Amino acid sequence: MNVRELQVALGERAYPIRIGAGLLDGDESLAVLAQGRQVAIVSNETVAALYLAPLRRSLREAASIEEILVPDGEAHKNQASLDIVLDRLLARRFDRRCLLVALGGGVIGDLTGFAAAIYQRGVDFVQVPTTLLAQVDSSVGGKTAINHPRGKNMIGAFHQPKLVLADVETLRSLPPRELSAGLAEMIKHGAIADVDYLVSLERDMEALLRCEVEPMREAIGRSCEIKAGVVAQDERESGRRALLNFGHTFGHAIESGSGYGRWLHGEAVGTGMLMAADLSRRLSMLDAASCARLSEAVFAARLPMRAPRWSAGRWLELMSVDKKAEQGTPRFVLLEALGRAVVRRVPDDALAETFAAFGEGWGGDGDGDAEGQRTVTASPRSKR
Amino acid sequence: MNVRELQVALGERAYPIRIGAGLLDGDESLAVLAQGRQVAIVSNETVAALYLAPLRRSLREAASIEEILVPDGEAHKNQASLDIVLDRLLARRFDRRCLLVALGGGVIGDLTGFAAAIYQRGVDFVQVPTTLLAQVDSSVGGKTAINHPRGKNMIGAFHQPKLVLADVETLRSLPPRELSAGLAEMIKHGAIADVDYLVSLERDMEALLRCEVEPMREAIGRSCEIKAGVVAQDERESGRRALLNFGHTFGHAIESGSGYGRWLHGEAVGTGMLMAADLSRRLSMLDAASCARLSEAVFAARLPMRAPRWSAGRWLELMSVDKKAEQGTPRFVLLEALGRAVVRRVPDDALAETFAAFGEGWGGDGDGDAEGQRTVTASPRSKR
Repeated sequence: MNVRELQVALGERAYPIRIGAGLLDGDESLAVLAQGRQVAIVSNETVAALYLAPLRRSLREAASIEEILVPDGEAHKNQASLDIVLDRLLARRFDRRCLLVALGGGVIGDLTGFAAAIYQRGVDFVQVPTTLLAQVDSSVGGKTAINHPRGKNMIGAFHQPKLVLADVETLRSLPPRELSAGLAEMIKHGAIADVDYLVSLERDMEALLRCEVEPMREAIGRSCEIKAGVVAQDERESGRRALLNFGHTFGHAIESGSGYGRWLHGEAVGTGMLMAADLSRRLSMLDAASCARLSEAVFAARLPMRAPRWSAGRWLELMSVDKKAEQGTPRFVLLEALGRAVVRRVPDDALAETFAAFGEGWGGDGDGDAEGQRTVTASPRSKR
Repeated sequence: MNVRELQVALGERAYPIRIGAGLLDGDESLAVLAQGRQVAIVSNETVAALYLAPLRRSLREAASIEEILVPDGEAHKNQASLDIVLDRLLARRFDRRCLLVALGGGVIGDLTGFAAAIYQRGVDFVQVPTTLLAQVDSSVGGKTAINHPRGKNMIGAFHQPKLVLADVETLRSLPPRELSAGLAEMIKHGAIADVDYLVSLERDMEALLRCEVEPMREAIGRSCEIKAGVVAQDERESGRRALLNFGHTFGHAIESGSGYGRWLHGEAVGTGMLMAADLSRRLSMLDAASCARLSEAVFAARLPMRAPRWSAGRWLELMSVDKKAEQGTPRFVLLEALGRAVVRRVPDDALAETFAAFGEGWGGDGDGDAEGQRTVTASPRSKR
């Protein structure tokens, strides 16, 4: 079996990410970790039906296995689901040496990771991400969280897993929208850190959309490398790690303003990246050709390319509770070039132009900025 | 002003503990930390009525001050109180650079510290402990938690404060029971790590019970030093830090079995230490004279000296959900001498004898062990 392994270098919290086909029941690393321990697998019904049986085979040497299923979807990444996990661990008298295993997408990973962070002040956990987004994003970096009625990911912790197992075969069962959502984060990694990777993604896009093992394993590996490299330099997100939020200030606004669950996170990030690139161009930081190139990659990944039609006031309101905001003034991750990102505060008028360009539809953004239209009209209509 | 300062040496998470009289509004360290930040003071009505005004004077250079009052008492160290804090922070749009200030005893400190640990994946906080127990125990070491219906401190995190301000003047308003409860933890520090300190506590006990500033500052300082030294060696409680749990396995059983709030934590620890010493003696690890000496210190601090009258089965049941337990088998911190503690698994029969000696009253423990009676009958009846 051809496995790509990389280390997330975080000193005593370092851990390996293993990427390949058939790892769920064909990799020894999880079996070794689970040996003799109380193990709880946290998943949802959809994923459990597909992958619980092979995963259990990897855990055959555990002292005990508890299956904890929580409701599916971002709307359930909340205190009620967290309570289901914590209550069960206590009811089964799980002690501090137990091991939690997150089997599912980002919701399961974030929820399980946060449960592991706070159960008896912290226990070990393993990520077995089964969506592309989770494999390249939420399983790398140790961010865990649940949502609060007042905002996404507002309650959480930094808690690193002991191991991440990314089985590319699980991606074959993904709905096309979710595959595209994962590709959005991979495009983001290229956009902020590695233009050659961005080019290779665009080149291999059809093979990636068909989930071909080789290109998928290599691309996931490169994305994890980029993210792991940034995280290793800045575990607690005080500086460089903020660059990973490229597209996310707009994206979170799109997600929360539309009601969680209507847009997938990666879809919102896809459009958010185009908005951030557009904003970079309006501030004379990025040229129009680079903007267009990013649009083309987003288009090739079959991602939506327009934002909801909201007033500037509505946008600002949605962004001011964003947790990256400081004292109410949102900052943005912008591009100086494809492959090079920076953080800047942005004047309201440039922001208003970007809102207008993406929210007003294809017909025009009302300010007569023809170059601005180029970004939007370079690509045909998205599926939204 | 005579301030004793010590550093808790935890690398990049190191922080100072400052101890003295009149620090609430007479110390610059908090003012400097709060400057220009969104600050939330978490407290309860009883404590706020006494100390909120002077504390606010120290925070006059904050960007804003939010007062969050939660219900008083251990019974309210729960999810509902946590929600009050988190909801308010979000409603007031507190960002990641905010500062939480815990003004109160261990309940407020643990709750506020945990809120700080998980709000937006972690924000800064300061401890301003107003009980003796909190000054010598819960404000040192970064343990934060809330209780769960199934067990005490089951949900929590390790999160170090940026500063601890222990104002000994706040101790004058403490009920006598709470002062004694704090002295129990100080006796514990002597018992596990420093017999000379134990002797000095016994010698100065009357002055300490009168809250005289000099001996109190020195004793609090020595207790914090001992605890900080242990914590610095073992921040995440994998080894040596377990010694700080001397008296706690029995103590937690007493607290939870009696219903939280009927025994103060320190009271339960006081009796728990005598039980652990008794168990050490039954296992031929500790001599009877040392047992008696510890009893005398506990007695001088006006702490209760008998446990509830429970069957061995009930005791074991209460102890097996203790979070220090591993796979259901409780381990105990025992004494090899006054000032020297170790962790051991203990056979059930010795344990049963200790339960009987402490639960059956002064009349005898039914096993005819006269030496065992010495420990119990050396001291007159406690206030319970």
